[in-house]
Amino acid sequence: MTLRAALFDVFGTVVDWRSGIARHVDEWMGAHGHTGVDPFAFADEWRSRYDPSMREVREGRRDFVRLDVLHRENLVEVLHSHRITAPDDAIDALNASWHDLPAWPDSIAGITRMKSSMIVAPLSNGNVSLLLNMAKAAGIPWDAVLGAEVARAYKPTPDAYLRTADILGLAPAECLMVAAHNSDLLAAQQCGFETAFVRRPTEHGPEQTTDLEADGPWNVVVDSLEDLGTALGC
Amino acid sequence: MTLRAALFDVFGTVVDWRSGIARHVDEWMGAHGHTGVDPFAFADEWRSRYDPSMREVREGRRDFVRLDVLHRENLVEVLHSHRITAPDDAIDALNASWHDLPAWPDSIAGITRMKSSMIVAPLSNGNVSLLLNMAKAAGIPWDAVLGAEVARAYKPTPDAYLRTADILGLAPAECLMVAAHNSDLLAAQQCGFETAFVRRPTEHGPEQTTDLEADGPWNVVVDSLEDLGTALGC
Repeated sequence: MTLRAALFDVFGTVVDWRSGIARHVDEWMGAHGHTGVDPFAFADEWRSRYDPSMREVREGRRDFVRLDVLHRENLVEVLHSHRITAPDDAIDALNASWHDLPAWPDSIAGITRMKSSMIVAPLSNGNVSLLLNMAKAAGIPWDAVLGAEVARAYKPTPDAYLRTADILGLAPAECLMVAAHNSDLLAAQQCGFETAFVRRPTEHGPEQTTDLEADGPWNVVVDSLEDLGTALGC
Repeated sequence: MTLRAALFDVFGTVVDWRSGIARHVDEWMGAHGHTGVDPFAFADEWRSRYDPSMREVREGRRDFVRLDVLHRENLVEVLHSHRITAPDDAIDALNASWHDLPAWPDSIAGITRMKSSMIVAPLSNGNVSLLLNMAKAAGIPWDAVLGAEVARAYKPTPDAYLRTADILGLAPAECLMVAAHNSDLLAAQQCGFETAFVRRPTEHGPEQTTDLEADGPWNVVVDSLEDLGTALGC
């Protein structure tokens, strides 16, 4: 079946969230007079609460809320653990860091190439305004902004993938899930999507131990989104 | 308040649906051996069922279904009134005409100019795949594809506007509704949006009698989307 859409995980796959968050944290701590916080460690702590916070929604104990809400709750907890207090609007500003993250060097060129022959859109757990603001700032040329908020389901819940394909009017086999995370691809493949693994060996920094290699029967394995464009003949 | 997003009605405002549908109908009738159907009259008949069919959803008598579904039901009725029968896949193909409509000559240049300084997205009753396929075919450079399907409410229901602003993380006053229809702008203005009326005096053909002029206190009134870009200083 011909691929009609390339759907991208975003955090780690398209953008370097860790460097971006660390930069924003560093600036924010400086502006607010807090010293002694390692911005990379802070970024990692914040991110470590991401998956558990979505689990409440995935497992039905909580109604769907957008990722901005979960990010902010998690941020308040991390600030608390550092005994840092701040006004609400300053916390909001730091929370907006996720709306402004740098693309990996190959991302925009690769997505631009694929855009000429298929639909390119995020299938991310990020909410629409987060992904849209990020795309405007970084120049990511999405055709549409899809994902958890539009599907009202967080990955890897099957509905996140299946509803996205349905919204696009496509069969799952016409959709390629692109991710740097094996678990995302496994869930997408179980929904009938084609799969592309992109190696991002420094997503979690120089000591990364997870997702260094493809560990499933993915259709394509590449080192960059430009290479993915080449592999797809774009 | 600074405008952050320009949100566009699509059918009639950005694209010339009547010419586009008439062309597709003419081709389809020819391919299926039907003669004597006036393609513009057929387009008008099909479109005349659009608003009544959404009313069932707006007034709560029917759960939200995407516009492709309503378009198809309406098409079956119009074909029936012409005593035309066709296989399901041929009806599907004709129904997809709404996914491939020509932009007015000024639309793409105008939207492109506004895109450089604000979010540009449809706020249409069209569903996501309809708007996305249309944008890919016509080259409309949306930042995101929003509207009734994402908000799960058909215009002019207030939720269609208010949920779209909320998804964007914007106050209504940061959003500009752009439409060739006074009723759309009235509903948007009542939700707190800024409003721009674009004259499209031939949307309904040379005999058009409605929406020839702005009939409310809209913030901007223009003759094209290029003029709107100029009026907004883009």
